[in-house]
Amino acid sequence: MLKTIEYAGNVPAVRIIDQRRLPDELVYLDLRTKEELYDAIKTLAVRGAPAIGIAAGYGLAREAAESARSGAGADEVRRILRETGEYLARSRPTAVNLFHAIDRITAAAERSTAGSGEELAAEVATEAAAIHEEDLEASRRMGEYGANLIADGASCLTHCNAGGLATGGLGTALAVFYAAAEQGKKVRVYADETRPLLQGARLTAFELKENGIPVTVITDNMAGFLMKQGKVDAVFVGADRIAANGDAANKIGTYGVAVLAKQHGVPFYVVAPISTFDTKLGSGEEIPIEERAADEVKGFREMRWAPEGVETWNPAFDVTPARFITAIVTEKGVLKAPYEAAIRNACGDSGGK
Amino acid sequence: MLKTIEYAGNVPAVRIIDQRRLPDELVYLDLRTKEELYDAIKTLAVRGAPAIGIAAGYGLAREAAESARSGAGADEVRRILRETGEYLARSRPTAVNLFHAIDRITAAAERSTAGSGEELAAEVATEAAAIHEEDLEASRRMGEYGANLIADGASCLTHCNAGGLATGGLGTALAVFYAAAEQGKKVRVYADETRPLLQGARLTAFELKENGIPVTVITDNMAGFLMKQGKVDAVFVGADRIAANGDAANKIGTYGVAVLAKQHGVPFYVVAPISTFDTKLGSGEEIPIEERAADEVKGFREMRWAPEGVETWNPAFDVTPARFITAIVTEKGVLKAPYEAAIRNACGDSGGK
Repeated sequence: MLKTIEYAGNVPAVRIIDQRRLPDELVYLDLRTKEELYDAIKTLAVRGAPAIGIAAGYGLAREAAESARSGAGADEVRRILRETGEYLARSRPTAVNLFHAIDRITAAAERSTAGSGEELAAEVATEAAAIHEEDLEASRRMGEYGANLIADGASCLTHCNAGGLATGGLGTALAVFYAAAEQGKKVRVYADETRPLLQGARLTAFELKENGIPVTVITDNMAGFLMKQGKVDAVFVGADRIAANGDAANKIGTYGVAVLAKQHGVPFYVVAPISTFDTKLGSGEEIPIEERAADEVKGFREMRWAPEGVETWNPAFDVTPARFITAIVTEKGVLKAPYEAAIRNACGDSGGK
Repeated sequence: MLKTIEYAGNVPAVRIIDQRRLPDELVYLDLRTKEELYDAIKTLAVRGAPAIGIAAGYGLAREAAESARSGAGADEVRRILRETGEYLARSRPTAVNLFHAIDRITAAAERSTAGSGEELAAEVATEAAAIHEEDLEASRRMGEYGANLIADGASCLTHCNAGGLATGGLGTALAVFYAAAEQGKKVRVYADETRPLLQGARLTAFELKENGIPVTVITDNMAGFLMKQGKVDAVFVGADRIAANGDAANKIGTYGVAVLAKQHGVPFYVVAPISTFDTKLGSGEEIPIEERAADEVKGFREMRWAPEGVETWNPAFDVTPARFITAIVTEKGVLKAPYEAAIRNACGDSGGK
C-alpha cells in the first residue's frame, strides 16, 4: 500500500502524495509551514475527510515541535496550537474529521501537565500519530464489516475516492474491496469518474489497479444505465460528514447515485469511521456545503471546454438523506435504521474502546 | 441562428459546422465524398439525430448529382443511391432519423419516372431540401408546443445538445427555450455538461449563449442535488429513437436524469419530431445501443486522466422507459400516456400533412 501521509524527517515535515498529479506522476510533497498545509488541503493535494484530519494532526504537531525548538514554553505552544487550529479549520468547511482532529490535539494540549514546550510537543506528536494509527485500525475493521456484505463475484459501484488516498492508508469504501479480496472473494468495481476533479478516474482507478482489484471506469452519467442493466450488486461510498439522523454529506453526485440505487433495488452503503459523525447536527440540512471555483466545471487542469464567460454552479458535496442509505459501515459495526439510536449508541460508546 | 448544415456551392458540397471544434473555433467543413460524410457522422463532426438525417439526405443528393454529371443514367443513379444509403446507414446505429432520411430518398428515386440521371438527381436534391425544410418547420412547431409547458421565470434542465446544432437549425429541446423567449418568457437553462464528449458544456452552452438565453453549466452528477434544492421546474431533452410504446433512446445519462426528475416530482419532457419514432420497435429493449471507443471515457481530446490500461465502459445512449416521461412534444402536438395509442395516431396520420 502507498503511504498517503507520513510525518517524516529529522526536522519533521508532513509528507503527502500530491494527489493533484495522480495518476500521471507519483510525487511526494514535504509540507514545512502551516500555510503550505492549508494550501495543500484547499487545493486537494491531500483530500478525503480522514486524510485531511490526519494531515492536520501532523501539521499541528509540526508547529508545536518548531515553536518548542525556538524556545517556546508549554503555554506558548498551547497558544500556537489554538491559533494554527483556527487557521487550518478554515481550509475546507465540510469535512468534519478536520475539526475533530484539531479539537482532539488542542484539547490534549490543554489537558497536558507537560512542564516544557519540548515535552508538550512530544505529547502532541504522539496524539497525532494515534489519530493516524486509529484510522488504519478503523479502516481494517470497516473493511471486514463491509466485506461481509459482499458476495463472491459481486460487482460494486463507488463514487469519488474513498480509498487509501483519502485516509491514513487503507480507505473506507475501498477498504471493503481490499478486505473482500483478502477473504478470497472476487469483486469487480465500477468507478464513477467523479467530475469535476475526476477523483474516481484518476485516484480510485489508480489505487484499485495498483492493488490488483479489477476496475472499470465510467462517466458519472452512466451509473443509472449500468444499474438498469443489472450490473451493480451494491454501492459503497465514503462520507465527509454524517448528521445525528444518518444524513450523509459526500462528494457531489453521491445523492444521485443513491436515488438510482433505490430505484433499482441496489443496496447503498456508506462506509465511514465514527470520526465522520457530527452528532451536534440534527440533520443533513445543517451541513455546510462548500462551493468551489467555477473554473473547475468549465474544464480540467489547463484545458477549458465551456465557452468563455458562461455561468457554472460548483457545489463540492451533496447530502444523501438517511432513507436512501441501506446501512452505514463503521469500525464499530454496521449501523442500520432507525439511525438516530444506532448512531447515538456507536458514538456515545467511544470512551469504551 | 447558425447554419448547422447547408447544401452549397457550384459543385454542391454538404457544408457542416465541425462540432468537434466548438466552442473554441467555428469552422465549416465541405464534405465532397461519401467517405468524408461517413467520417463526419462517425466522429461527431455532425451530430444529433435530425442533423444526421439531413446531412445524409444531402449526401445522397450530392452522390446522385456527381454520378449524373459523369453520365450515369436514371437506373445507375438509383443503384448508386441504394449503395451509398447502405454505406451511410452503417455510420451510427442508434439515430433512426438517419435511416428514415436514407429510406425516403431511395424510395423517392425508385418511385420517380425521371428519364435521365440529371433529372433524377434534381428530384433527389429537392427531396433532400424538403427533409431539411420540414425539420425547420417541425422545430418551430415543437418549440411552440413546448413553450406552452413553461411558466415565465422557469428554470429548466437539459442534457446533451438537442439544439440547432443537432438539427436543421432550431433544435428540439432547445427550440422550446427559443420559442419561450420569443413569447416574452424569462427562462434559465441548466445544461448538464454531458460526458464523455461534453456536448452540453461545449455546444448547448455555446448555442444558448449565442442566442441570448441565460445558461448555467453543471457537471452531470450535480443534476440530482440541483433538483433536490428545488431549482429545476422542468426537464427538456431530445431523443435519438422512440419505440412504439414511448420508450426513448437519448444520450447516455438521460435515463438517470429521468429517474431523478420522477423522484423530485419534476416534469420530464422528450422533444422530438415524428421522424424520431420507430414504430417497428415494440419497446426500448429493441433499440440497438452504440458503444463507442474506450478512450473517450479516459479523457477528453488529447488529454488523458485515467491510468494507462484501465478498463472503461462507453455506451453512447441509454433508454428511458415511457413511464418516466411526462409527455413527448412533437410537431403534431404533445403526446401523453397511454403512449401506444398517441404515437400510433401521430405517426399514422403522417400522410395527411
